[in-house]
Amino acid sequence: MRPVDMNKQQLAEFKEAAQKQYDEYKALGLKLNMARGKPGSAQLALSKPMLNCLTAENSADISDDYFNYGMLDGTPDAKKLFAPMLGVPEGNVIVFGNSSLNIMYDCVSRCYTFGAGEGLTPWKDQGKLKWLCPVPGYDRHFAITELFGFEMINIPMTEDGPDMDMVEKLVSSDESIKGIWCVPMYANPTGITYSDDTVRRLAALKPAAKDFRIFWDNAYCIHHLTDTPDKLLNLFDELKKNGNDDMAYQFASTSKVTFPGSGVAVLGASEANLKWIKKSMTIQTIGHDKVNMLRHVRFFDGSFDNVLAHMQKHRAILEPRFNAVLDLLESEIGGTGLGSWVKPNGGYFISFDALDGCAKRIVELCKEAGVTLTGAGATYPYKKDPADKNIRIAPTFPPIDELIKAMQVFVTAVKLASAEKLLSC
Amino acid sequence: MRPVDMNKQQLAEFKEAAQKQYDEYKALGLKLNMARGKPGSAQLALSKPMLNCLTAENSADISDDYFNYGMLDGTPDAKKLFAPMLGVPEGNVIVFGNSSLNIMYDCVSRCYTFGAGEGLTPWKDQGKLKWLCPVPGYDRHFAITELFGFEMINIPMTEDGPDMDMVEKLVSSDESIKGIWCVPMYANPTGITYSDDTVRRLAALKPAAKDFRIFWDNAYCIHHLTDTPDKLLNLFDELKKNGNDDMAYQFASTSKVTFPGSGVAVLGASEANLKWIKKSMTIQTIGHDKVNMLRHVRFFDGSFDNVLAHMQKHRAILEPRFNAVLDLLESEIGGTGLGSWVKPNGGYFISFDALDGCAKRIVELCKEAGVTLTGAGATYPYKKDPADKNIRIAPTFPPIDELIKAMQVFVTAVKLASAEKLLSC
Repeated sequence: MRPVDMNKQQLAEFKEAAQKQYDEYKALGLKLNMARGKPGSAQLALSKPMLNCLTAENSADISDDYFNYGMLDGTPDAKKLFAPMLGVPEGNVIVFGNSSLNIMYDCVSRCYTFGAGEGLTPWKDQGKLKWLCPVPGYDRHFAITELFGFEMINIPMTEDGPDMDMVEKLVSSDESIKGIWCVPMYANPTGITYSDDTVRRLAALKPAAKDFRIFWDNAYCIHHLTDTPDKLLNLFDELKKNGNDDMAYQFASTSKVTFPGSGVAVLGASEANLKWIKKSMTIQTIGHDKVNMLRHVRFFDGSFDNVLAHMQKHRAILEPRFNAVLDLLESEIGGTGLGSWVKPNGGYFISFDALDGCAKRIVELCKEAGVTLTGAGATYPYKKDPADKNIRIAPTFPPIDELIKAMQVFVTAVKLASAEKLLSC
Repeated sequence: MRPVDMNKQQLAEFKEAAQKQYDEYKALGLKLNMARGKPGSAQLALSKPMLNCLTAENSADISDDYFNYGMLDGTPDAKKLFAPMLGVPEGNVIVFGNSSLNIMYDCVSRCYTFGAGEGLTPWKDQGKLKWLCPVPGYDRHFAITELFGFEMINIPMTEDGPDMDMVEKLVSSDESIKGIWCVPMYANPTGITYSDDTVRRLAALKPAAKDFRIFWDNAYCIHHLTDTPDKLLNLFDELKKNGNDDMAYQFASTSKVTFPGSGVAVLGASEANLKWIKKSMTIQTIGHDKVNMLRHVRFFDGSFDNVLAHMQKHRAILEPRFNAVLDLLESEIGGTGLGSWVKPNGGYFISFDALDGCAKRIVELCKEAGVTLTGAGATYPYKKDPADKNIRIAPTFPPIDELIKAMQVFVTAVKLASAEKLLSC
């Protein structure tokens, strides 16, 4: 019988069993962490050979230009390597430093202080500002727009991406809406990839604000976990069809391809956007780390196919972890009505929806038993999950035995918190 | 006889001789560049061995923390290595990416958008904004404050640093003055090092604006060119004595120590300033390139003395170049009254003051003869040198034979432009 269909007596017994199990785990004094989407040790090891791609010996033939100042917008070979990752022509790429989040922050900051383009009023001078936030989503996105004082509007995620009826209605009618956060492929945390129809409708938006921008954070564009990966329609091409060339900034990085702290981050955008960005960028810096760009180009022998092949090595490490999590969820929670989740075809997360009002309690129970999860609410603007139900599970970092142990605690906490909740109704 | 004392007839002859020489140089079809303060090829070669400090083989014992996300404010060992460069305790250091200019831009941007500290009104909301600019100075500093709409006020440089009478008077009386650009050691371009008295007076300022900040760009702090280097009083200590702990941001980098594009940049500041900076920095990025920090720490074996020893190798390359420039200035312009300059004890530039109204013409004549100089006026805010007299000579980048050839053209252009000017009076 499903707990949701039990009477009080049955529920009390269900709870007692869960409590007993929970207390046993708690007594183990565990210290496990499933909080952040960090690559694990074996994944980091995959890229160590990259360190040998540039040595004193093998760099003798390299132009001084790579080591000196200059090349503000990145090296030509790095642009060429990463253009297919963004799905834009080489000429539409700027190669930055180690953090795509930093590019996004700078894009918001630039639009805020100087405007989104030549002759456009800075956002700061336009009074009330709003931003669309598909939820659940990425906490660090929301932190940026919160810092700049945007009122963030929750947009529910469907299995096709953000609720486009709502997006279209809001964007076309409200000039104070300046942007939307999108993780279009293997979204953080839902794992959803936007459908072709969603991408087409986003590209065809007719915003009331002429300085509206889609922040297209394609962080997991090549982070597949199956033989039948999701496919994402090319936003850049779709924008062109609608004459909306300037409406999006596209971001990607090698943070989860090579080294999280020492990767290369890239921006793709229209000619007009790039021209505007470079106008302040030339004052902001003299350029980014071209030696590290070259290290990446050499590691992949300048070929994007080699990047994709490298990602298969990551998959080999990650797929068993995702399966371990999914297996435990299926065997322990499947059919109970106590939670739902989607098996992602890629990315870094599994998004778990508990019974309404249970997420905080589950995270709390896990913490008390030594298992750290992403904070409940973190996947929503202002850290406020209106239904208190979503929990982001990050299976990549812990060793697999620790992951399984942590998930055993998790499913037990789900049962216990759910029983508490159902008994209190 | 000095040209400035010649009659018209004598001047005409002097001009004719200069013109003849100039035409000969022009006929050579030269293509030489003395425009930017870039290290030359031999200097870049000094740091190539650093590329071997981190390889797949010798990184086996390195903690994953260096390769993964995290350590927002830099690695402990990098803080320790670079703290003496800033002259602050390790705990007062943040290690950033490859560009100190970018740290400065971010500091201005942060104060502008969010204020200079907890509870302080953002600069953007304070109406008219002004900034003090010691002149001649660094064009990229002025570009930042120009972009953010500051009215920039020229402060004459004396042989002790900025005119402190003027600085004290302005800063203490005008709340709209929010900062001052300082290159306190071997200043760009004058080569002047601030006297102890100047540092003490700066540290003891009593600004009308409680959010006034000294931007202390110590770009050339270890870039000595003699056995008797200049000495700079420690600003951090002096600020403390005056209870002005929060009044300065200090910047330095290894851009001209290791690789200009792939160095490490650092910030030193008070506890309160660092806390405020980290509050937005944690939203701005997940951290900077720790692998490159470690590469630097290993290259210098964690010892600042080794950094200083490395700088002696740079000096060995640069000193002959500076001497070549100074020798030519002395032999060709010395005693003519057509220009003045100071022999710097370090840094990257020689600042040349021509007769009033001659700088643009000299740069133009050089350009027509194939020698590119920093644009006349570039060393002043808005690129406007009121007296049109200052030219920044950058001797580091060209090979020495090209440098000598370029300087021969330069001194000839000085003579020709000066004669034109004197004849027109």
